[in-house]
Amino acid sequence: MTFPFEIKATDGAARTGVLSTPRGEIRTPSFMPVCTAATVKALTTDQVAATGADIILGNTYHLMLRPAAERVQRLGGLHKFMGWEKPILTDSGGFQVMSLSNISKVTEEAVTFASHIDGSRHVLSPERSIAIQADLLGSDIVMQLDECVSWPAEPERAREAMLLSARWAQRCKTAFGTRDSQALFGIQQGSTFQDQRKESADRLTEIGFDGYAIGGLAVGEGHEAMCEVLDYAPGMLPVDRPRYLMGVGKPIDIVEAVARGVDMFDCVLPTRSGRHGQAWTWDGPVNLKNAPFADDDQPLDASIACPASRAYSRAYLHHLVKSQEILGQVLLSWHNLAFFQALMAELRAAIAEGRLDAFRRDFKARQRVRV
Amino acid sequence: MTFPFEIKATDGAARTGVLSTPRGEIRTPSFMPVCTAATVKALTTDQVAATGADIILGNTYHLMLRPAAERVQRLGGLHKFMGWEKPILTDSGGFQVMSLSNISKVTEEAVTFASHIDGSRHVLSPERSIAIQADLLGSDIVMQLDECVSWPAEPERAREAMLLSARWAQRCKTAFGTRDSQALFGIQQGSTFQDQRKESADRLTEIGFDGYAIGGLAVGEGHEAMCEVLDYAPGMLPVDRPRYLMGVGKPIDIVEAVARGVDMFDCVLPTRSGRHGQAWTWDGPVNLKNAPFADDDQPLDASIACPASRAYSRAYLHHLVKSQEILGQVLLSWHNLAFFQALMAELRAAIAEGRLDAFRRDFKARQRVRV
Repeated sequence: MTFPFEIKATDGAARTGVLSTPRGEIRTPSFMPVCTAATVKALTTDQVAATGADIILGNTYHLMLRPAAERVQRLGGLHKFMGWEKPILTDSGGFQVMSLSNISKVTEEAVTFASHIDGSRHVLSPERSIAIQADLLGSDIVMQLDECVSWPAEPERAREAMLLSARWAQRCKTAFGTRDSQALFGIQQGSTFQDQRKESADRLTEIGFDGYAIGGLAVGEGHEAMCEVLDYAPGMLPVDRPRYLMGVGKPIDIVEAVARGVDMFDCVLPTRSGRHGQAWTWDGPVNLKNAPFADDDQPLDASIACPASRAYSRAYLHHLVKSQEILGQVLLSWHNLAFFQALMAELRAAIAEGRLDAFRRDFKARQRVRV
Repeated sequence: MTFPFEIKATDGAARTGVLSTPRGEIRTPSFMPVCTAATVKALTTDQVAATGADIILGNTYHLMLRPAAERVQRLGGLHKFMGWEKPILTDSGGFQVMSLSNISKVTEEAVTFASHIDGSRHVLSPERSIAIQADLLGSDIVMQLDECVSWPAEPERAREAMLLSARWAQRCKTAFGTRDSQALFGIQQGSTFQDQRKESADRLTEIGFDGYAIGGLAVGEGHEAMCEVLDYAPGMLPVDRPRYLMGVGKPIDIVEAVARGVDMFDCVLPTRSGRHGQAWTWDGPVNLKNAPFADDDQPLDASIACPASRAYSRAYLHHLVKSQEILGQVLLSWHNLAFFQALMAELRAAIAEGRLDAFRRDFKARQRVRV
């Protein structure tokens, strides 16, 4: 039993379709806002839902430390805790253990680390990660625990982590078992090495997952190197299951990844940018702090069906950002999520209508960095 | 031509009614959320409206410095700038010039001060205050410029300020002239001296205003001293016009002032408390940071028709506050405003039904400070 994934149209390597879950349909290509600590930062779940998000992503690492996964379970699970009824994907915690915690030690058995909040010691094994995600938080899409190496990586180091991730994938699959209303995704590793990506994909496919993530990218390799990996990595994964590129990214990254066959994305960029006064637009990112906006009576984008995008002038947003008002962070986070969802809707339509190449070309020409 | 004020019921000195303005009805007793810098801090105007607020209060001092009153005018006025269609009352700027600016000097002509933001020098005269409020911001209810003395004040100093305020009241009235769709309120001063309050009220009444504020309270004198002034001050003001107690206050202050004949209030307390993890309830204020809330699966108050009050557990709010998440500040600010509006609705109903004394007694018994 797994979530039905219907591919409704393809355009080159790109696909558009629907992943059906008991909590609702996920239209792909799909962008998942990140709710790190059981909140999409600065926004209510109603505001997030109003942007058109079908699914959000929760961080196991943060939630296991605070408020603690067992507490979330006692309070009815993550959906009820934070007031979000649609699907939630949780990451395994592994990536953030290695990037955020004070000390981490990886063994065959598990990763041991100290909390960045209070220094308390924790152990995260493949089995514990599955228990936290599937049983305690009640996630809809559960990610295997993996080891993600930094970039650049020596081939031997990358292969070691890829093979450990594959063994952990099997342990996660065993721990997850068979479930009616939850899915388990494997994660391809192998850094920027094509042979390792292939070996990783083969091992995961042999185990068999409900979906496949491409991990180990968006770790500093840059847009070009990422696109090179995406030239081959998605095609190594089963064509009939969703492919999820973890932690990506900028709009231009998303467009290029979709063109190469990726179906799902997550990134903190829209909310993080929003908290720092940056708005994403069809013409690229703009910094609302900049003086020319002080008298600009136009909205950010009247074509986007979000109050933050269409109901306030750039002059007002400029004022809020300059005044360090919380509402400025709220409105820019909200607009950015709405923009990312509008981008995904445009991508889905372009694929369905067989005009993705033209869309890509136009998009790339318009997206530029303004200061 | 002035705003019709219909008193629908009285109960002792208390009154409930409706002040009608071209932008909508203000049900009294009324609580006005404060939008200091053209934003009710942390909330969208839709969220503020959903709490039942009929009117909000803008701060002339803040707006004249940033984004500047002339800019607000160019952008269509304060209502359009911030996206609020219902009435706005603006203060005169005088109180904050004296409490926030770096240097201020009061003369017969005007107050001169240096901005707390950038040190730039500004002059605020009665005429300039009226021009900013009525012509540039486009406020619905305009306040006279006054001089508010600190507490405690020597009688001579208090009387000097009260008399200057009365002379400025006349200049404001002259500058304001006669307007179809805007109202001008005078401000009673006189500190805690009954004879000065009377003299102030008489001078204002002789000039004639659309409403009368009680100024110079909530400046440190405490609940008891404030109530003593309110035993006589409201009754000195015209019975047929709204009475507005500036900068008040805690729920218990509001209840006692309503019982003494006050119709309108404003205070930053609900939003400021909310940003600091404090929620106001029928049982008094509670600090969501406290450990017992970590596992409390009940909402703050399911009887209040606000998502922040009824749709999230105290455990979730505790988690957000502990994690210093913006959403915690948003939800607690929102709940607090909803609670204050619920309190005003209860007060209006109690007056209409002639049971204000019982309501006051019960309210006082329940309101207590929990830590």
